[in-house]
Amino acid sequence: MHKNTDTAVAVLGASGYVGRELVGLLAQHPDVDLAFTTSESESQVDGVEAVPLAAAADRLEQADLVFSCLPHGVSGTAVARARTAGSRVVDLSADLRLSDQAVYGLTEVYRPSLPDAALVANPGCYPTAALLAIVPFARAGLLDITRSLIIDAASGVSGAGRNPRRELLFVEVAEDFRAYSVGNEHRHLPEITGHLKPFTGPVDVVFTPHLLPVRRGILETIHLPLLRPLDRAAAEAVLLDTYQAEPCVRVLRGAVPTLRDVVYRNRVAIGVVPVQHVIQPMITLISAIDNLVKGAAGQAVQNMNVMLGFPETEGLLC
Amino acid sequence: MHKNTDTAVAVLGASGYVGRELVGLLAQHPDVDLAFTTSESESQVDGVEAVPLAAAADRLEQADLVFSCLPHGVSGTAVARARTAGSRVVDLSADLRLSDQAVYGLTEVYRPSLPDAALVANPGCYPTAALLAIVPFARAGLLDITRSLIIDAASGVSGAGRNPRRELLFVEVAEDFRAYSVGNEHRHLPEITGHLKPFTGPVDVVFTPHLLPVRRGILETIHLPLLRPLDRAAAEAVLLDTYQAEPCVRVLRGAVPTLRDVVYRNRVAIGVVPVQHVIQPMITLISAIDNLVKGAAGQAVQNMNVMLGFPETEGLLC
Amino acid sequence: MHKNTDTAVAVLGASGYVGRELVGLLAQHPDVDLAFTTSESESQVDGVEAVPLAAAADRLEQADLVFSCLPHGVSGTAVARARTAGSRVVDLSADLRLSDQAVYGLTEVYRPSLPDAALVANPGCYPTAALLAIVPFARAGLLDITRSLIIDAASGVSGAGRNPRRELLFVEVAEDFRAYSVGNEHRHLPEITGHLKPFTGPVDVVFTPHLLPVRRGILETIHLPLLRPLDRAAAEAVLLDTYQAEPCVRVLRGAVPTLRDVVYRNRVAIGVVPVQHVIQPMITLISAIDNLVKGAAGQAVQNMNVMLGFPETEGLLC
Amino acid sequence: MHKNTDTAVAVLGASGYVGRELVGLLAQHPDVDLAFTTSESESQVDGVEAVPLAAAADRLEQADLVFSCLPHGVSGTAVARARTAGSRVVDLSADLRLSDQAVYGLTEVYRPSLPDAALVANPGCYPTAALLAIVPFARAGLLDITRSLIIDAASGVSGAGRNPRRELLFVEVAEDFRAYSVGNEHRHLPEITGHLKPFTGPVDVVFTPHLLPVRRGILETIHLPLLRPLDRAAAEAVLLDTYQAEPCVRVLRGAVPTLRDVVYRNRVAIGVVPVQHVIQPMITLISAIDNLVKGAAGQAVQNMNVMLGFPETEGLLC
Repeated sequence: MHKNTDTAVAVLGASGYVGRELVGLLAQHPDVDLAFTTSESESQVDGVEAVPLAAAADRLEQADLVFSCLPHGVSGTAVARARTAGSRVVDLSADLRLSDQAVYGLTEVYRPSLPDAALVANPGCYPTAALLAIVPFARAGLLDITRSLIIDAASGVSGAGRNPRRELLFVEVAEDFRAYSVGNEHRHLPEITGHLKPFTGPVDVVFTPHLLPVRRGILETIHLPLLRPLDRAAAEAVLLDTYQAEPCVRVLRGAVPTLRDVVYRNRVAIGVVPVQHVIQPMITLISAIDNLVKGAAGQAVQNMNVMLGFPETEGLLC
Repeated sequence: MHKNTDTAVAVLGASGYVGRELVGLLAQHPDVDLAFTTSESESQVDGVEAVPLAAAADRLEQADLVFSCLPHGVSGTAVARARTAGSRVVDLSADLRLSDQAVYGLTEVYRPSLPDAALVANPGCYPTAALLAIVPFARAGLLDITRSLIIDAASGVSGAGRNPRRELLFVEVAEDFRAYSVGNEHRHLPEITGHLKPFTGPVDVVFTPHLLPVRRGILETIHLPLLRPLDRAAAEAVLLDTYQAEPCVRVLRGAVPTLRDVVYRNRVAIGVVPVQHVIQPMITLISAIDNLVKGAAGQAVQNMNVMLGFPETEGLLC
Repeated sequence: MHKNTDTAVAVLGASGYVGRELVGLLAQHPDVDLAFTTSESESQVDGVEAVPLAAAADRLEQADLVFSCLPHGVSGTAVARARTAGSRVVDLSADLRLSDQAVYGLTEVYRPSLPDAALVANPGCYPTAALLAIVPFARAGLLDITRSLIIDAASGVSGAGRNPRRELLFVEVAEDFRAYSVGNEHRHLPEITGHLKPFTGPVDVVFTPHLLPVRRGILETIHLPLLRPLDRAAAEAVLLDTYQAEPCVRVLRGAVPTLRDVVYRNRVAIGVVPVQHVIQPMITLISAIDNLVKGAAGQAVQNMNVMLGFPETEGLLC
Repeated sequence: MHKNTDTAVAVLGASGYVGRELVGLLAQHPDVDLAFTTSESESQVDGVEAVPLAAAADRLEQADLVFSCLPHGVSGTAVARARTAGSRVVDLSADLRLSDQAVYGLTEVYRPSLPDAALVANPGCYPTAALLAIVPFARAGLLDITRSLIIDAASGVSGAGRNPRRELLFVEVAEDFRAYSVGNEHRHLPEITGHLKPFTGPVDVVFTPHLLPVRRGILETIHLPLLRPLDRAAAEAVLLDTYQAEPCVRVLRGAVPTLRDVVYRNRVAIGVVPVQHVIQPMITLISAIDNLVKGAAGQAVQNMNVMLGFPETEGLLC
């Protein structure tokens, strides 16, 4: 299935939810060939053969670009090996997201660095939704960093991965709603603050993730302390100015997004909640993505497209 | 079915979700008889005969205590008629919740006023969960009212009532999550600020309700600005001190509640999220109730029990 | 948006679930232009302008092919008007499914009649899943029509349409499962028996539809009385022989389909349940479709493709 | 917590879904004391202390009656040990359901044998719903056993237990519906045929279980071949005659049950589907139970009540 003229890509760790989503997207991508995929538990993913990672070591050099969907902590070694084999890499694990070695693949923010990047750290799902909503205000110098930024975020269950755990069983999740990672700082919090820092300096974020009884999708309700009041239209204008030419960002006017607007799409949708009167200037944003698409596999393909000079949305529904 | 020795009660507007829940609770209550119920659309609710409200006018005086689950705006007239007929009233509509004519039936806060109350305004579901979590801190003088209090709240669909509306169809709600009432101030916001005022003076609350794809339950994530730092244990102590003797309040230690802890129960469960470092003192609370029980019908029965001198949790699972 | 070289199509009744699905498919179809759509309740469907049906009367002749997703009973008049205006028609209502005036658009069975058809009656969702599973056995003379054929069918809620009705509310459907249309013969039963008749003569079908708490998808468990025993492999062979070249039929070997295999696809998936010993020869089949795609809008596009000489799966994910 | 005057009971294997349901019921039962519970994975179940089974060996004789919710295959040994220790036993595993050593605890059918039973095999969930619907017709000599009896059954996910397995994850089950145990005869089939045999002799049943995206509840659609035609009223009369005095059976007239009618209750609800014309006499029944209550823990308590001479529905909501 590897056509000579196409770019060869490989997916490491293809049998999780993110890996499968990525295999599905790459299988339909017109400009790449899926050279191989790896899985420890399955011999096939979405109709594509999969081999154990150990068996794939000598195939790494076949791939022009390697995607790693391996678990956090495990991904690093495989990424290093792929780099040694001469492949460019998009790492979907959390391992390199705060590292200087990799370009942080928040496409809309770091696009100029992608064409020359050998190693891209694909952002986490929560940080993608948060940063794309907040960065325009941070960049414009509107944030009051003497006050906390508050993010209440809710994610569908696929965000927790495909390994069987009791608390992810249907009977446990259906008809329930809960905050989680409480007391253990979620690894996405330093990713958010770390990537706001270039724009704001140190910033304080109170981040509370919740588990939603839906299969996919993230919705974040974000309360931004501002240096001066902005009404709904003014806040929308900040977003519209930033994202007017972006194919994968939808800024809503006079409305807020729901999961329905973003699932199965490589899109972030952002809206502004009008707050009629507040004691100190602030604005509430709603930001929504599909955690498996714009929050993972879709953004990885978007990054690959920019890295390889393909049209940015090739193979993606935005 | 009216035994002589029991107190006769009636339920106006019995065929909505709240009305049916209330009929179910009263049918099992050992000390009352359900004299009659009214419904415009159904002739029977949970096995109990229902008549149109107009047909019940001359039966009002049969009831020692009348519950009104009529729609907001409609309830007022019926409540006035029941009062004229000599009945005591628990009004579950929003009509009198900010009125001086009625005792606000947040049982744990206004218990002393209930035994002599002729007219009780049963609190809304969102305000019940919010106020029971916040009042202990407000009362203790811990709130910094120069900053906004932020509440991100999520409710199961029964909170939106039983009248058919497209946006409440299964196909529209399942697998979705959305903020609602955006741009139209939710009527529960003034109810929350109005009932904090006696403790704090004017206070600014940013309240964003969301619709959850579950049948029942409310979970609120509440961010309280504080005058001085409180760690988790200290914040829990404020709640434990306030509620140690309360049968319908569960304060969690070192944990936060989920909907699972409260559905089908007349209980509020409250936990504290440890926030490790913040730029200004604040605490995050999670407060959960069943919107149809402690948020409506159950609290109405709890209020009745106190009004009539029955044991406070009679007929209730707390 | 009407390119000269493309075929102009129109969708009447575009704001229901089927209509919207169809608009979505047509908007992405490479060979047609969506000339106009009608809706009584919405001015836009999926980003495409919609006008009331009355306002569209004089635009019918602009369309080479008209799809009617109007309600059963209402569709007939509009279809007649479109025919008079010279358009070919695919009618997704039930009005003409048992009429000699229209070709019955079960593509895999009536494909040869489609290129010359002026009027196609698109099959119902339940009949599509049932007939595609049964017809191969009927055609092969394997059915014992002296015994009843039993179909227990379950449908996602979108099959019941988008008009608000209490029994379709999230609160009523979630966590429930029920048989419906009990005592009122479902209109799909005569459609099934009527379209088996050419192959079997009069046949007795016991059809019990159930409502599933899912958004889309139909799964039918079909018990076929046979004239002689067939083991699993032999029954699979009957299906495989019939459908080997069909792009939109997937016959499973040694497995049965679930909704997951078919949702969002224009595909029927059929599997055989091995029955180890039975007192009289029979076989149990499982047949699954997406009620909105192969059960409605997708099959309509498939029919259009054949009618107009386009590749049969153009614009469809099978 | 062991009051002297009450009967002491114990629950082995208390941390699964059935065990927890049982602990919940026993904790509220007015006539028994929960002496101890065992669990290998949890130290507490629903607020009651649990110890590993090995640690409970010498406590067995403290219990007048022991419930075993241990896994199939494991339960046998523990049951034998409890019998040796002198306890009466209700075994909720499948181990003894087809054994002469135990009374089969389908209460409504085998009630007379319960008061003297030392060992009761509590029926499986699917067989409970099936047998209670079929036995009245079998007993009345109405079944045509020369034809197959067809049962299409659907169960909520708690029926599959609480051990984490990938196919039971929320993401896998939500929005899906599937037949399962296909090709591997479900262990409940011989339980059904074995317990029909006393009434009918050998009988052929085609049983196809399906997995529903709900937490609890079983609904079975049962097609019974009859020796002579019965209309709906006549079929209802058969059921009504059999069950008129039964507190835990609800026969519907002119309607069929849904899961909503039975969940959280120790009740089977049965209705008749009118079949207007069929080629050979048959009737379709719908039978519904809560798999955790009447299908497991509730029926176990009901059996205990009869064994110990308590009122049959004590501690149960029917």
